[in-house]
Amino acid sequence: MKGVLPMTEEEVKLIIIQSLKDGGRKNFQEIMSELQPYDMAYLYTDLPNKHKNKFLLYLTIEQLTDLIPELNQEDQLEALHKLGVEKSTKILDLMENDKLASLLSSLDPEIVEDLISDMKIEESEIVHILMNYTPETAGRIMNNRFVWISKHYTVREAVDKLKAFAELAEYLNYLYVIDDEKKLVGVISYKDLLLGEMQDKIDDIMYSRVVKVHVNTDQEEVAKIIRRYDFVSIPVVEEDNTLVGIITVDDILDVLVQEANEDIEKLSASGKAIDFNTKSYIAAFRRLPWLILLLFIGLISGSIIDGFSATIEQVIALSFFMPMIAGMTGNTGTQSLAVVVRGVITHDLDFKQAMKLIFRELWVGIIIGLICGVLISIIAYFWQGNITLGFVVGSSLLITLIIGTLTGTVIPLILYKLNIDPAIASGPLITTINDILSLLIYFGIATAFITQLS
Amino acid sequence: MKGVLPMTEEEVKLIIIQSLKDGGRKNFQEIMSELQPYDMAYLYTDLPNKHKNKFLLYLTIEQLTDLIPELNQEDQLEALHKLGVEKSTKILDLMENDKLASLLSSLDPEIVEDLISDMKIEESEIVHILMNYTPETAGRIMNNRFVWISKHYTVREAVDKLKAFAELAEYLNYLYVIDDEKKLVGVISYKDLLLGEMQDKIDDIMYSRVVKVHVNTDQEEVAKIIRRYDFVSIPVVEEDNTLVGIITVDDILDVLVQEANEDIEKLSASGKAIDFNTKSYIAAFRRLPWLILLLFIGLISGSIIDGFSATIEQVIALSFFMPMIAGMTGNTGTQSLAVVVRGVITHDLDFKQAMKLIFRELWVGIIIGLICGVLISIIAYFWQGNITLGFVVGSSLLITLIIGTLTGTVIPLILYKLNIDPAIASGPLITTINDILSLLIYFGIATAFITQLS
Repeated sequence: MKGVLPMTEEEVKLIIIQSLKDGGRKNFQEIMSELQPYDMAYLYTDLPNKHKNKFLLYLTIEQLTDLIPELNQEDQLEALHKLGVEKSTKILDLMENDKLASLLSSLDPEIVEDLISDMKIEESEIVHILMNYTPETAGRIMNNRFVWISKHYTVREAVDKLKAFAELAEYLNYLYVIDDEKKLVGVISYKDLLLGEMQDKIDDIMYSRVVKVHVNTDQEEVAKIIRRYDFVSIPVVEEDNTLVGIITVDDILDVLVQEANEDIEKLSASGKAIDFNTKSYIAAFRRLPWLILLLFIGLISGSIIDGFSATIEQVIALSFFMPMIAGMTGNTGTQSLAVVVRGVITHDLDFKQAMKLIFRELWVGIIIGLICGVLISIIAYFWQGNITLGFVVGSSLLITLIIGTLTGTVIPLILYKLNIDPAIASGPLITTINDILSLLIYFGIATAFITQLS
Repeated sequence: MKGVLPMTEEEVKLIIIQSLKDGGRKNFQEIMSELQPYDMAYLYTDLPNKHKNKFLLYLTIEQLTDLIPELNQEDQLEALHKLGVEKSTKILDLMENDKLASLLSSLDPEIVEDLISDMKIEESEIVHILMNYTPETAGRIMNNRFVWISKHYTVREAVDKLKAFAELAEYLNYLYVIDDEKKLVGVISYKDLLLGEMQDKIDDIMYSRVVKVHVNTDQEEVAKIIRRYDFVSIPVVEEDNTLVGIITVDDILDVLVQEANEDIEKLSASGKAIDFNTKSYIAAFRRLPWLILLLFIGLISGSIIDGFSATIEQVIALSFFMPMIAGMTGNTGTQSLAVVVRGVITHDLDFKQAMKLIFRELWVGIIIGLICGVLISIIAYFWQGNITLGFVVGSSLLITLIIGTLTGTVIPLILYKLNIDPAIASGPLITTINDILSLLIYFGIATAFITQLS
């Protein structure tokens, strides 16, 4: 095996193509047995089309089971199609059921039934159950490739069972212990087994205070718990404490990236377009609904200015500061919004915490408002040589910055508490609301002082 | 142990306080042995101050070593102080060195020297080395609590070593194999050991194609690799392939959250203020530098309007559409920026990929621009009854949306390629640049058609 070590990816690719041409399955397998699933998939995707069939043919069922989930969906279906019904069914049977469910969840129901019709009944039933859980819950991302042991086992029996299932189980760091009714009653680490005596009863050495999640727990909550406890896996139970699956840390890595992307989608109102490979018209139509809504809201700003056009016509200099005030208010709002959207990832948010945050942000708004307000008063005075204008611009900025900060804090907090999809509180929306408020305040103050201004 | 299982957190807390009052160390330990480090820390933090000393006193050194890293920095120092030099030193010796380094890295150098002066020399040296790596690299987040085995070992010898070090090693899923010069030459999974024969040579059954990272690899890159391969840990080597540490998946979870926060800070220019607990004046002063810069850039918009004030004075209706056009351009720019900032997390970005992305976004801009441009032309025409105004507003929006999309794509891409801190391409900055460009285009077109407009 050691011959493979120093090869570059390019060399590996050339040898693989050569062995596919020569029919050298032994050479092929020698390299393949050293590769990680991701590398296999990378190699396969990169291969000229004419070699792909033979590549698949040369792999064992186990290797195919590793390879398929690493491909993108289109390639997955193509590969399964190339492999034929018999082999595909074997692979689907062997595939981790969370990966299978995520492959199937985005397919046409007819294709799904077609694919799983030949699977072992117990496997296909499990997949059906999994797909029925709400997306983004523990039930949807759990898998059933874990090893459970009875609390009546001895350490020796546990180790034997572990050996028997070693090929199956993904993350072996903990074994979950169940009672006679399949209820989760304990957990024992691999380490504890290693250090225990062979005749020890599991019941006596296990931890009975198990950290677990329910099938309906939100995946973001699961991620929070796994991060908190530094677990490699966490058990998932039904309402009645029956152990039904585990969630492994590799899935949590994907959850964290997905949730971060969703937060950024909220802040930027880009919809599910955060993907380099999305086609342009699809990306455009995902972003459009928001943009059109914001366009109409933007027109409200227009009609506010329309309403104040007498004021502007008298003092055209007022319009010079308009974009700056609206922009600054929008910026502070976005900053506060970011704090809230990300903060709820790591903090449990109760009323006390929320009020503390609102007051913190209020103070931030006051400090920022005072500094920027004084600064702009001085600039406006020297630029336009009008002390009243300086006062109007400065006091407007003070007030709008405080209000902007509060809008950016309070609106997402309220939505979060009401369990309304916080996507509604997207960055551009907060920006636009702040635009409108800032224009009303600015021109309101200006109109009040219009006689001194002109 | 089983008595602890059904208790709520509140009940646990009451029993603990009772046992601290009674001097019931046995009861105390019975509960504590079932708790996770996070739960211990939660309990400790929540405890009335008068009980904290005794709580610490009742814990074993091992439990204290688990507890300390879970506390926030202030409480960590306080607890170490309460424990005294002797116990503290033992705890620091036992603590995982990445956790220790992260505790020490934010402290005053003097306090650091004070704390580690009594540590075992080899431990304190390791911490010093760790703290000298660049922040956010593999070297900084790795730890040395792994089990290495020589390639000359048999499976039996490996299992024996594993048992001896079981208490020490954090994530035992893989064992890393080194040669006589401490160079990393292979990896073997726990599963392989379990399934192997006792007399098998490690050299013969190990995988020699080890996925590894260098001490200088960026932590974001490490996260990408761990996600890709679904590893629980990854080995870290020096330039000469000497094995110096491992990075475990629990640290990668934190890296992903930290990097996502940084991305959001970039998009919102909020600085390192994404924390519920930051004091208001600190949060304000972190956000202020950007805001003041943006204030001055916002004044450029003002002077542009100043330059076009003759145009505005002739057709005051032009100012009604000004915030909408500037806002929409800013919004599309932010959407594109979000795509780039998050896309580089999951994709390696080469020139081909970048060009593909730019063209994709160009098309997105054209589609969005056409639809929004036509829409606003119609609205402007009916609102103001002026077909030329409709044309001016619509064509301006078409052009500014295309330019806005491109700015939001190209600027962060260039910065990324130049390895310049992309924080410069923060959302508000792109928004502000787009503001200026959109005003120039809008009033430029309007001035060209001024005779038909008025």
